[in-house]
Order: sequence, then structure tokens, then C-alpha cells
Amino acid sequence: MMREVAIIGIGQTPVDEQWDKSIREIAGEAVLAAMTDATRDRTEGLFVGNMLSGMTSKQENLGALIADWVGLLGVEAIKVEAACGSGAAAVRAAILAVSSGEMDCAIAVGVEKMTEGLPVETTSALASAADADYEADQGLSFVAINALVMRRYLHVYKWKHTDFANFSINAHANAMHNPNARLHETISLEAYNKARMVAAPINLLDASPTGDGAAAVVIVPAELYKYSDKPLVTIAGSASATDTLAVHSRADPLWLSAAERSVKKAYSQAGVTPADINVFELHDAFSIMSALSLEACGFADRGQGPRLALDNEIGPTGKIPITTRGGLKARGHPVGATGVYQIVEVAQQLRGEAGETQVPDARIGMTQNIGGSGATIVTHILKVNR
Amino acid sequence: MMREVAIIGIGQTPVDEQWDKSIREIAGEAVLAAMTDATRDRTEGLFVGNMLSGMTSKQENLGALIADWVGLLGVEAIKVEAACGSGAAAVRAAILAVSSGEMDCAIAVGVEKMTEGLPVETTSALASAADADYEADQGLSFVAINALVMRRYLHVYKWKHTDFANFSINAHANAMHNPNARLHETISLEAYNKARMVAAPINLLDASPTGDGAAAVVIVPAELYKYSDKPLVTIAGSASATDTLAVHSRADPLWLSAAERSVKKAYSQAGVTPADINVFELHDAFSIMSALSLEACGFADRGQGPRLALDNEIGPTGKIPITTRGGLKARGHPVGATGVYQIVEVAQQLRGEAGETQVPDARIGMTQNIGGSGATIVTHILKVNR
Repeated sequence: MMREVAIIGIGQTPVDEQWDKSIREIAGEAVLAAMTDATRDRTEGLFVGNMLSGMTSKQENLGALIADWVGLLGVEAIKVEAACGSGAAAVRAAILAVSSGEMDCAIAVGVEKMTEGLPVETTSALASAADADYEADQGLSFVAINALVMRRYLHVYKWKHTDFANFSINAHANAMHNPNARLHETISLEAYNKARMVAAPINLLDASPTGDGAAAVVIVPAELYKYSDKPLVTIAGSASATDTLAVHSRADPLWLSAAERSVKKAYSQAGVTPADINVFELHDAFSIMSALSLEACGFADRGQGPRLALDNEIGPTGKIPITTRGGLKARGHPVGATGVYQIVEVAQQLRGEAGETQVPDARIGMTQNIGGSGATIVTHILKVNR
Repeated sequence: MMREVAIIGIGQTPVDEQWDKSIREIAGEAVLAAMTDATRDRTEGLFVGNMLSGMTSKQENLGALIADWVGLLGVEAIKVEAACGSGAAAVRAAILAVSSGEMDCAIAVGVEKMTEGLPVETTSALASAADADYEADQGLSFVAINALVMRRYLHVYKWKHTDFANFSINAHANAMHNPNARLHETISLEAYNKARMVAAPINLLDASPTGDGAAAVVIVPAELYKYSDKPLVTIAGSASATDTLAVHSRADPLWLSAAERSVKKAYSQAGVTPADINVFELHDAFSIMSALSLEACGFADRGQGPRLALDNEIGPTGKIPITTRGGLKARGHPVGATGVYQIVEVAQQLRGEAGETQVPDARIGMTQNIGGSGATIVTHILKVNR
């Protein structure tokens, strides 16, 4: 019943401190870049992925706001929120709108403006991704929740903190070649081991930086663009699933059951297995999340995620290349925008536009965007025929 | 390409001060009531309409939170935000998910918890529906923006403030028979004229009260329920459109162009004209909005909306019955929930379950939910075969 859809335009801003721009301006830059890339000046719908605008910019109703700002006055427009998974959730809403036939073009933009609120307001706002009554209200910040998960993981599966180093080292190395990345700085094993503590055992080099930024994609029916001269990136799988917000409510706090549910559905839709995935932009908000995501998606056995990092299998020429443009760790994590950055970056890989960190012959790519500590997980699989 | 969908379950909580319940509990009551009404215990998706939870409850990621709370652990779930239009936008997302064939059942719930933040926090949070940079930052509260619109309307179209009285009198009279209404109190013309001023010319009886509440609907493919013994309420039209956030940016600040755009599309989808609409739940956040909505939807000429109220044509047996369960004015306006309340109430009318304010032989009903001062407008047309 659904028709195949394609991404014909991508756009992004640098992830940075953008003190001089309001949220509409940041979003607008990415939308206009994506429309330019798609050589289109119209759309039928705009889906905005954003988590924090009410709290940090005192601005809701972003759909109408951004539509007007970019010259799309009047189009259908809404904001989609699923904490740090808002970006991919917005892309999924745009995909559904086009694949259903309701629209012939939809734009999804993820945007976040976080810098002004740092450190107190933003930390408090980010805690709203967790369970306000049973986690945040007990004084748990978002990083503290992830620290408890990592501590337990180290205990149960007998890893040492240093075994996670390559997740961060790889991300920083890749970001050196991404002009839009927040951090351009390689890091060493020694620096990782000595980084100052944030919430033990998570140190500064386990944690992704916040930032201001936006990324956008233009979604259309694939059938209309089959004869374009550019490589056509199509959506082969799109699925979303949820888990409890509070980590303590889960049968196994070290297993991302929402990731497993959404990725299984996406694999099935795309007719692929983990072995077919050439590049995987995962949600490395904290290094522990890379391990959990690799396991839930079938790239590593339970408790064995760090092995792929230790064996250097996660670089652009490794067995499963991840965070090829820097990931959340080094490209940066403007929370509601991150899921769209991931999809833009995989599209770059599939088009062969990823420069120094290009994955050779990348034909099938995957993204996984996580809201909360595994509560909302959205997986996309993209393909290209070149 | 799209298949017809139906509403087979409706649920709502009273709109009230619900100090003893968290936002998940309020939403859960409505969802479970709707599932009970539908005699279903599962769904494939949950779409939450909400505007303020981050600001007033320090809680985002409501999709996963509420899904878990009502026993739907794991299902796809997101929050949809379009200011006070969030509720209908969430219903529309659920409709698209089912009409596209992506899901065979989706639940939409609108929920808002506003009382705890009153008066300062909630007033500030509501201002995020307006343009933060060019309206709210200048000190304009949301009611102040509407007051400017009403003042200009009185000036341009030569009405007196008292000419709007029947909008509020009718809403209060109808709410007397709605057990879920916030206010159970008839009001007189004298009381309306003498009510204390909020932001001139809007007085207390022009303005809708805030409140805590939730409403929910269960959406399924109509074809599967054609032979149910209950009257089957189907979605005949669903459309959404936007305008500038800032009222001062519009060519005509007294014309809801987003209402016109969305209602024209909905009329066309449903194959109806204004004369076919038996009941219309409009967005009377302020009495001026009733007039503007009636005009944009073709029930009155430009500038002539108050005439329908003066002529007593808006009651349950009038030419165009509006706010038949109390409307925003008296049922109450828990902002992100309001759009779902409207749809639940029209479903009650079409099923013949509206009691003392039943519109005789109601077969086609319409709802219109507005986010911001006309910035995001979502229109639905419902039909029943009885």
C-alpha cells in the first residue's frame, strides 16, 4: 500500500555555539540548504524535530514559525518530539506523509539551540527526557542515569573503562574531516584515560557535547526521481519503538529492547541482515550507548560491544563503520537535530560524498536515534543504486 | 491510495484542577477509557498531543512514558506539538498512520497539566505559542495578542463588545449538561458585560479557562468495522495549514488564512459545503476567535461572525451549532488536549450520545483546532451512517 520514498536533498549547519542566531534562523539555514540541494523551492509539509525549544528559547509552534521563515508560508507544519530521538521521529513522520500519498514532498528538519541555557537550564531541560517523577525528581541528571548504566555494564560484563576508548578516539578522528563537526581535535588513549570525571565512570571523553545546529532532508516519492543523474538514496526501512522511560523499570537495564524491536522491523522491511549494513550512524551520546546499540542491532553478542572498538572494527574501513562524520561525540549532539544529522551523514556516505572518511562502496546504511536512555528508538535503513 | 479510517473509541477526563495526578495518570485515564469504549487492549501506535509538559511538568518523551503507563510497552509513540493545536495535530498523525496502511490501529491522546504552574509559569509558557522574538519578548502575553485582534475587529467592523456575549452564554449553557466541563455555571448578558477586564477589550467571560485534562480516540481502518452494531464515525476530511506566528506580519490580521486553507481542503476531501455541517466544535479560546473561525469557514461573511451569535443561530438547534459541550470557554482549555476533546465531542454528537445538547439528526460534524493566534490550524470533518 505504501510507496517507496527517496531523499533528494540534504542540508546542515555546523554544530557550534550560535549565539547570534535564533532557533528559526538555525533551522532555516538547514532547510534552505536541503531545498537548494534538491533544486526545489516548494514542499507540501514541514516536520520539525526538536526537544527543548519551549524551555531554552521560550518558543513552541516551531512548525508554523520555521515554515514562514523559509518562505513556505501556509504549508502543513508540526513539531515532533521524542526527546533526543526527535530528529529521526520527524524524518519518519515526513516519510509516512509521502509514502502514504498524502504529500508529494515533505521536508524534515531537526533543530536545537542549547548553548544559551548552559549549564544549569540545559541540564535541567535535558533531564525531561528521563522520568520526571521517578528519576529526575530524585536528583538524577541525564548523564548520571547513563553513568549508572555504564557502571553496571562494567560490573556485569567485566570490561574496564579504558576498553571503551576507541569509540571516542574513532569519533574524534572522523570529525577532523567533517567541517560541520563541533570538535576538531584528535584524542589519544592517554587523554581518554585521564579526562576529568563527569559522573563516574563517565568522563568528559565518554560524553557528547551539546551544541546549536540543524539538519534537514527533502523526502519525495522515489518513482518520480528514478532517472535523476545523482545517485538516488531511498528509504528501505523505517521503524520506531519504545521502552520504559525509567531505566530501573526494565527487566534488563543493559539491553536496549526498543532498539532491538525497531531494528528487527527495519531489517525485515529492507530485507537485510546486520552483515549487509555498510555504515551505521549510531547514537553515541555516551560511549556506553555505542556498545549497547551495536549489541541490540546484532553486530555484537550481548555484553561484547566494546570488542568491536578494541579490535578497530568501527573505523571507515572496519567491519562496521560507525560515527563516520564524528558521531554525537565529536560532530556534536544538538539533541532534537541529531537524528537528522545521522540521516544526512549516511546519505553523504551512500552518495559517495563523505570525503576522507568515505566508507568504500557504501550501498546500505543505517541510522539509530535514541530518545531518553533507550526509551524511544527510531531506526532507518537507506539504500543507493549507483 | 489512502484508506478510510474510523473512530471506534473515545475517552476523556473531566477538565479540572487535578493536583493529585501526574501528567501520565491524566493521559492514561483518557487512553484507557477510549480503549474500553473500543473494546480493544492493543494498538500499534500512540500519538500524544501536548504543548507544555517540558515547561510545566519538566517531562518530555511523553510518547514512551504514556505508552508504558497504559500497558502498551514497546509500541511506536511520539509527541506532536503545534501549540494549542497539538491535540488535533496528534489525531491527524494517527489518522495518517492508519490511512496509509502503516498501522491497523493508532491511538491519539491530547493531554495537558497546567494548574500547578499558574499564574506566572503557565502564562509565560503559553506565550511560547506566539513569536518569542517579536511578540512575547515585547511583553505581549497570549491574551494581550488576542485583545489587540479583538480591539481592531471592533474598530474595523463596527461591533460593540456586548455583541459577542452569546458566544460565551451559549458555551456556558451547553456546559451545564457536560459532566466533564470545567465550569458549570450559566452566565447572563449582564454578567458578561460587567465581568472584570483581563486585557481590554477581552474580559473574564470572553476568555477560556485553563485546566488539567486529557481526551483520546482510537483510530482504525473503517472497512474492518462496517458491520459493528454501534454507529460508525468516520473521518471524511483532515487537513492542516499554517500562517505567520506573529499576527502583525499578516496581510489582514482579522482573517484566519490558515483556517480558510485547511477548511477548504477538508470540505473538498469530504465533498461537503458549510451548509452540510450539522455541528461545529470551533476553537473559542477567546470569543473573538469564534467570530473569526465562523467567517473563515464560510458560515458568515467577513466581519459578520457576531451576527450568528446575536441571532441565536449557534445553539444546539440553531443554524450552525457550536461549542455544544461547552467549548473552550466552559468545557475548558487544557491546551494540548483541546483538539482531541473537540473530536471526542463531535463523535458523541454523531453517535447521538450528547444528551441535553444533542444536535437533532447530526450526521456531519466539524472540528477546528488552532495553535497560536491562528498560526497552525487543523480541521477535521467526521461523518456517521446511522
